[in-house]
Amino acid sequence: MRAAVLRDGRMVLRDDVPEPVPGPGQVLVDVKACGICGSDLHFAKHGEEMVRLSAEMSGLPGGGGMRLDLSRDVYLGHEFSAEVIEAGPDTDAPAPGTTVTSVPALLTATGVEPIVYSNTTIGGYAERMLLSAPLLLTVPDGVDPRHAALTEPMAVGLHAVNKSAISRGETALVLGCGPVGIAVIAALRHRGVEHIVAADFSLKRRELARTMGAHETLDPAQGSPFDTAEPAVVFEAVGVPGILNDLLRRAPAGCRVVVAGVCMEPDTVVPFFGTAKEISVQFVFAYDFNEFGEALRAVAEGEIDVAPLITGEVDLAGVGAAFDELAQPDQHCKVLVTP
Amino acid sequence: MRAAVLRDGRMVLRDDVPEPVPGPGQVLVDVKACGICGSDLHFAKHGEEMVRLSAEMSGLPGGGGMRLDLSRDVYLGHEFSAEVIEAGPDTDAPAPGTTVTSVPALLTATGVEPIVYSNTTIGGYAERMLLSAPLLLTVPDGVDPRHAALTEPMAVGLHAVNKSAISRGETALVLGCGPVGIAVIAALRHRGVEHIVAADFSLKRRELARTMGAHETLDPAQGSPFDTAEPAVVFEAVGVPGILNDLLRRAPAGCRVVVAGVCMEPDTVVPFFGTAKEISVQFVFAYDFNEFGEALRAVAEGEIDVAPLITGEVDLAGVGAAFDELAQPDQHCKVLVTP
Repeated sequence: MRAAVLRDGRMVLRDDVPEPVPGPGQVLVDVKACGICGSDLHFAKHGEEMVRLSAEMSGLPGGGGMRLDLSRDVYLGHEFSAEVIEAGPDTDAPAPGTTVTSVPALLTATGVEPIVYSNTTIGGYAERMLLSAPLLLTVPDGVDPRHAALTEPMAVGLHAVNKSAISRGETALVLGCGPVGIAVIAALRHRGVEHIVAADFSLKRRELARTMGAHETLDPAQGSPFDTAEPAVVFEAVGVPGILNDLLRRAPAGCRVVVAGVCMEPDTVVPFFGTAKEISVQFVFAYDFNEFGEALRAVAEGEIDVAPLITGEVDLAGVGAAFDELAQPDQHCKVLVTP
Repeated sequence: MRAAVLRDGRMVLRDDVPEPVPGPGQVLVDVKACGICGSDLHFAKHGEEMVRLSAEMSGLPGGGGMRLDLSRDVYLGHEFSAEVIEAGPDTDAPAPGTTVTSVPALLTATGVEPIVYSNTTIGGYAERMLLSAPLLLTVPDGVDPRHAALTEPMAVGLHAVNKSAISRGETALVLGCGPVGIAVIAALRHRGVEHIVAADFSLKRRELARTMGAHETLDPAQGSPFDTAEPAVVFEAVGVPGILNDLLRRAPAGCRVVVAGVCMEPDTVVPFFGTAKEISVQFVFAYDFNEFGEALRAVAEGEIDVAPLITGEVDLAGVGAAFDELAQPDQHCKVLVTP
């Protein structure tokens, strides 16, 4: 079958990927849509660094190394919806034809395989893939599978907002209106937060931020967002060196900073800024099962309308070009791969 | 009257300081004891940097500049107990002879003056000073004023523990057993935390940590504390560059890091370590009035026995030499100035 794979830093189309065969507890599915995530682009560009940092943490408490060989093809694609084709042996699964989604993890006889970056576990940039029956969530009838594919990034936003413990009356400032920032904005609005300020250099992104729920948008080129906003909670969704220290320096006293952006490079901060103002910095990552389920419900019931996020759609042959185009992200929010 | 003041980076004795005169709402007190704080040593050494960083934050939201001229004498001393001499005009105050303590702030006609570093507001390294009647806490009869002087550092420890929201069953790891780390240990024990692990390179400090409530002590020279402890909460009480990144790298997933150490220098971290493990970093500073009052009660009622902390006592003429000696902190925890 066909799949787009990462080879030497580029996404290339293969048509000789062996057909996956579901084992016990697994389900073979037909991929309907898969979103291209910023972390995929990041991995394509900085894969070696990510594997190295992961190895540096493994062996240490809390660490866990990626088992990945970058000289071999890597399967990607973790924001997907799919249609059930057939269940593996002795497996209780939804009927063939049912639209489903799942947290990106495959339960195997030897353990849990993340469906994120893998030499062996096929992701959503493929015609077909395996999912785990116990992890499947059924997408309600009538919901566009392309929208259901965005359950995963919306869960990321919900999780960041949950971790912040923000209350409705508190002002939220979202720095960066790429897919992560937009998901945070959608989740803040979903939680009823009454004052959401969003900042991004791109006019297009600021417009999308308003569409998705921001009450106010700011252009950092016109001055620091902290000159006009006095947020209780700041969501950092940029993930580049320098932003953390700028936050510590400019954020108001007692501010809670939620770091949702992923910064792989070393970064320099002046801890005294944090100390003098008693700032808290909560790094966040991913979501839990409940948040994933809530995100699907919110998308399915239209409480979060994800349609405006979809700015492009490509087939498997177009994944490579889409990755290149997303490197200039001003034109796009979310590009879907529809095999 | 006499006072020890900071002049050109050194503490020197002056005998020509004008006698302070209490205004309305103020009280003239006779200083009984004043602890030398690590931040005083820090300020003596890095005062220019502190003033610069403070200025960098001022004018920004949440910032507040220090109004300090380092070319003039600076009064220090914020961990004090004192005896009331006389109240200012129209001032309701405890009777002369009453032993008191206070948060280190003086209310004046023009605003709140911190009693920490000042060209004008006299601190605890003096024969007499002014305090504010509404902020005074009476030290119960029979309590050693030298112990009551340690209310302030104990409040720092209580505040750090309160901010961590640690529960009794969670493991706490305290990195650094100087006065701040020791105050945190005392507060953790006071809160009933059942597993307190303390780490310091100094045997003497590890022994003091045990005396003050640590259940287990570790020598980082023998291996990272994270090799043996798996803490829910880490209290960073060292405050030197490098420790924050080591924490992010080694701390277990979901760990809450409370930064109680004060690091004035820039520091480099790899944010990805925090992201991958969803670590939270809460910077803490000082305490609130309730915590200060609770610290006094705990000290006065012997729930926190501060006697073992006092490793030295000097008069005003000895402050300069004490500052020098405390630069090699292995031999000392808390040195009291008893004018």
